[in-house]
Amino acid sequence: MQRLLITGISGFVGGHFVDFMTRYHNTFEIHGISRSKPAWDFVPPTQKPIDTYQFHQADLNDIPKIQSLITEIHPDYILHLAALSSVAESWKTPVVSFMNNTNIFLNIIDTVRLNDNAARVMSVGSSEQYGIVSEKDLPLFEERPQSPENPYAVARVAQEQLARIYAKGYGLDICCTRSFNHCGPGQSDRFVVSALVKQFVMIAHHLQEPVIHLGNGAIVRDFVDVHDVVDAYRLLLTKGKRGEVYNICSGQGRSILDIVTMLSEIFGVQVQVHQEQDQIRPIDNPRIIGSYQKIQRDLGWKPTISFEESLHSMYDYWDRRISRELPMSR
Amino acid sequence: MQRLLITGISGFVGGHFVDFMTRYHNTFEIHGISRSKPAWDFVPPTQKPIDTYQFHQADLNDIPKIQSLITEIHPDYILHLAALSSVAESWKTPVVSFMNNTNIFLNIIDTVRLNDNAARVMSVGSSEQYGIVSEKDLPLFEERPQSPENPYAVARVAQEQLARIYAKGYGLDICCTRSFNHCGPGQSDRFVVSALVKQFVMIAHHLQEPVIHLGNGAIVRDFVDVHDVVDAYRLLLTKGKRGEVYNICSGQGRSILDIVTMLSEIFGVQVQVHQEQDQIRPIDNPRIIGSYQKIQRDLGWKPTISFEESLHSMYDYWDRRISRELPMSR
Repeated sequence: MQRLLITGISGFVGGHFVDFMTRYHNTFEIHGISRSKPAWDFVPPTQKPIDTYQFHQADLNDIPKIQSLITEIHPDYILHLAALSSVAESWKTPVVSFMNNTNIFLNIIDTVRLNDNAARVMSVGSSEQYGIVSEKDLPLFEERPQSPENPYAVARVAQEQLARIYAKGYGLDICCTRSFNHCGPGQSDRFVVSALVKQFVMIAHHLQEPVIHLGNGAIVRDFVDVHDVVDAYRLLLTKGKRGEVYNICSGQGRSILDIVTMLSEIFGVQVQVHQEQDQIRPIDNPRIIGSYQKIQRDLGWKPTISFEESLHSMYDYWDRRISRELPMSR
Repeated sequence: MQRLLITGISGFVGGHFVDFMTRYHNTFEIHGISRSKPAWDFVPPTQKPIDTYQFHQADLNDIPKIQSLITEIHPDYILHLAALSSVAESWKTPVVSFMNNTNIFLNIIDTVRLNDNAARVMSVGSSEQYGIVSEKDLPLFEERPQSPENPYAVARVAQEQLARIYAKGYGLDICCTRSFNHCGPGQSDRFVVSALVKQFVMIAHHLQEPVIHLGNGAIVRDFVDVHDVVDAYRLLLTKGKRGEVYNICSGQGRSILDIVTMLSEIFGVQVQVHQEQDQIRPIDNPRIIGSYQKIQRDLGWKPTISFEESLHSMYDYWDRRISRELPMSR
């Protein structure tokens, strides 16, 4: 059985990936690295992938530990999910963001180089790498020059450039993504769609006034459901072309305010909107929309889950979570 | 008196900068940070800038130490020279190269941000950032898209992108260079021109057969004398435009083999050339030649020292050094 090592296994995408693989594509011996053990509350309990992977506790900036772990596991594939993927957080703690995006990735690929180059590595990047683009550049194709406009984006560009150098200069087998904004059940409320859905659930439970708090409501993003993302990762891991970069996106743009309107209509709740000044970022990309033409052409992937379906599954997730947290007397 | 903090003060450029400032432009209280105390052997002893600067021992990856030092010194200007600027070394130890280029710079500018943004920072970059370019793109202007082709170049591109984000997003006062290959007395023989001149001196002292060992002799680089470089840094430090990037170069390209021929003619020594396979890099840029039009236009700088003069001063340096090391009986 081939060995797959997943970094950042405890995260949102890690949980969905393991759940997906163990349910539909259980062809790997899965190993996972993370700083803390997975505590996924979004994976259906009856199908919880307990004992379907081996967990290894480690900080990816602890180079000797990573070297000994990778040598011991000797993976055939590495899916590098570990990241601090919040743009907002990267403005607050840019050094932490950089080290936990670029440096951890470099530590992984350099360990693979020092071993024997044997593992195929999948490097996850971000649509933020494109930076501020004009309307005529949309949708974004992979050829588009990159122009990072926040600390997180700089870290991701450096990661992809390192991946390219390691593929070209050292012969490593690396494939890269530029993954657009995710959504789906279990996503942290540090990310906008999850934060919005959570607020609607709070309002439904009378735990919040019918006022939605958000940052810049005008920005447009391309949201792709995490279930579609993990299917793309599964395909790219084994079939993505060496040295290539693939967009993973829905191809559709939605403004944050449009999402509030959709949620209001779907769940039948009237709300007011408050834009919070302290959530406005120093620089922000007004519109990001991607094209998934390349991954569709090379691997046959396309998104299958509608944004409405994503909102419903996220609502159900927050509803379960918040209901659990309510006092028993209610 | 305004305070100037120089990182990497112990290095080749640091020594020349301090020597130059103390001789001609002593308008700063100079502080220097480095891992080890300067041991410059290329500064004329009668003018040795002893006691003209305050030395602080620190590793720039020791964030708490850097924070306390910068808070204590409270510099008006920071000239960030600290770097591991060898492309060859970056292929051998990419993690060390990355941390000692990108991470150390990020630690410095983040400390400035966390203090009060008060210091003006000069970020030194590299012509390697341009990558492999075609003949029609020469000479290279600053607008040219960057395409890093080795681990060192990736680290420098990330450094400049971080500088740009800190200037634009946090309002830091940063000015950047893309400095082309340096030459001059005191340069380590890990760099090609210095290594060649040293070999000619060794041959003159009968310490080496008349055979010159080099890597890829066909590559063309733009070499600028370190005395011109430090003058450019002095000007940019106080007058370079905020957020801008400036090439520092000679505007002339020379192949490594041409330099061997020049040295052979100047010093009247016939040599054979041996190309060493183990010095060939995985990827190499065939030709790099810059334009100094922008810095000439904005600051009036242009190179003043001919390449022949550089070779003579480098020969004198190696001759003094090697003569000192010879047994007294000779």
